Amino acid sequence: MSEKKKNWVNAEDVARLAGVSRSAVSRTFTPGASVAEKTRKKVLAAAETLGYQVNIIARTMITGSSNFIGIVTAGFDNPFRSKLLSPLVHQLALHGFMPLLMNADDPEQLAPSLKQLLSYHVAGVIITSGAPPLSLAEEYLERKIPVTLINRDADLAGCDRVASDNAQGMQLMADYCRQRGWKHVGFIGEERRNFSTEDRYQALLACAPDLTIATRFIPGGGYAAGKAAALELRSSQVLLCATDMLALGAIDGLRTLNGDNPRPAVMGFDDIPQADWDPYHLTTIQQDTEGLAQQAVDLLMTRIAQFDLPSRHRAVPVKLIIRQSA
Amino acid sequence: MSEKKKNWVNAEDVARLAGVSRSAVSRTFTPGASVAEKTRKKVLAAAETLGYQVNIIARTMITGSSNFIGIVTAGFDNPFRSKLLSPLVHQLALHGFMPLLMNADDPEQLAPSLKQLLSYHVAGVIITSGAPPLSLAEEYLERKIPVTLINRDADLAGCDRVASDNAQGMQLMADYCRQRGWKHVGFIGEERRNFSTEDRYQALLACAPDLTIATRFIPGGGYAAGKAAALELRSSQVLLCATDMLALGAIDGLRTLNGDNPRPAVMGFDDIPQADWDPYHLTTIQQDTEGLAQQAVDLLMTRIAQFDLPSRHRAVPVKLIIRQSA
Repeated sequence: MSEKKKNWVNAEDVARLAGVSRSAVSRTFTPGASVAEKTRKKVLAAAETLGYQVNIIARTMITGSSNFIGIVTAGFDNPFRSKLLSPLVHQLALHGFMPLLMNADDPEQLAPSLKQLLSYHVAGVIITSGAPPLSLAEEYLERKIPVTLINRDADLAGCDRVASDNAQGMQLMADYCRQRGWKHVGFIGEERRNFSTEDRYQALLACAPDLTIATRFIPGGGYAAGKAAALELRSSQVLLCATDMLALGAIDGLRTLNGDNPRPAVMGFDDIPQADWDPYHLTTIQQDTEGLAQQAVDLLMTRIAQFDLPSRHRAVPVKLIIRQSA
Repeated sequence: MSEKKKNWVNAEDVARLAGVSRSAVSRTFTPGASVAEKTRKKVLAAAETLGYQVNIIARTMITGSSNFIGIVTAGFDNPFRSKLLSPLVHQLALHGFMPLLMNADDPEQLAPSLKQLLSYHVAGVIITSGAPPLSLAEEYLERKIPVTLINRDADLAGCDRVASDNAQGMQLMADYCRQRGWKHVGFIGEERRNFSTEDRYQALLACAPDLTIATRFIPGGGYAAGKAAALELRSSQVLLCATDMLALGAIDGLRTLNGDNPRPAVMGFDDIPQADWDPYHLTTIQQDTEGLAQQAVDLLMTRIAQFDLPSRHRAVPVKLIIRQSA
């Protein structure tokens, strides 16, 4: 360890080589701090020569706050959440923040995740859809650590959330059904305590009183659930699925009945990469993952700057993508 | 900020409430340190009451090394790499390490990733398959920061790597071809500088001198590449694909020719979740992602403990999964 420590170049080394004060080095690397251009150039040249890295750990000790953001998510292999992860990490990086990932599907990580993230002095936490319990959000908020929820609901003071505009999405679906003359629709969802399922289902009920709606809610959701549900709702003219994974399973379920031309029609919600594959060509509501990530990080950054704000909620517009499945 | 700082309970607060010394608190939370059982219990009770968290940032300052591990990966939405991420994060958590994710597909993250990870005093770096350039590995090694590669190759002193046993996998494929009486095979890969493609191709050449092999290498790989390549190699009896994504595309490409019963047969390598979906039922070589993660973290932990070891290489056994595609 002692041998290793010697490899870290510190600010004193840079100051010595540049012939400036320790404080000039510090100011050069502090965003917004004032430093003469000539001094700044000397410092940067010396830093480059020595391979000096700003010591974020030390800065955290001094300022009392870190640039870590906890991302608590449920598993990494759900295609929608994987698709959301890239823009989320990208947006955080643009603001100079570093994500710490917690997998809420992994019991060994979920239980100690609160204590762990606190021990890193996280500046904020993003909780995504799926398993993470909302009691976690409360515990962070009690400690004045900003929390933003993505595609989740919570009636917590000071908690921000951003979600795809499910009302708009279900309206687009219902309008498309009317356009195609479909009056008997099936709705397939995960369990009803899943926010996206329940919110999309309620939105459908609200905007489509003229449609007859049969329902099937299957705990856990996913491909196999969609397959099973589709067979039970096969007398509908179209199956509206709360997620693309349910929809892809539904198409394959119906294929076992009708071969190459599965009926009824199927519509999904997400637009994961697999939705566009040949066996599916899924008509779906596309969630704007870039928009969700941008809004989530914006909400978090503004609350990090000022914790005492009322709860905010932003809806990100969605888009109907028409392919062959409906 | 100052208001926020007050919310952090420190070791002095815990010591005061427990009626013990500051050093007793410190020893209670240091793995392996000696502390009387009675003292330990008092400290833990006080810590629980106050909501005290061990300050990892402070510990890093004191010890000079952190428990951060950089994971440099190419994108998060490749199904195989997503599948590998869960066990990797899990294994690191078991050892008390926290991953810092860097997306090498994002130019804004790749360029500064080295400096960023250094600024966090990462204890080690894991570089996965795909885009991250190996020059990165060299830069870490020069600073005596351990590097482990997963499914990558590198002739770097002191660099450890773990990969699926591609020789075994291709032997399993070739034996299966012989068993089915296939003598004319097609091999579909990504560009040849991709390690998995090249290593699997060379392994096939080495173990199957009796087979006639036509090849198609398509930069970037993926579903669309597999689709295009399959049409060009359709006179083969079986298509051996370097990845499942290529194989799924190949099946869909052949489906446009032969409808429901695509020929030639297709075999993949990975066993991603989509391989088992109805339209594919892909016969494939299953990579043991748990095993890869476990070996990678074990190599990294042992090198963190002692940096000056010779380069080590471990091959993780694979398994033939027979489904209907071949």
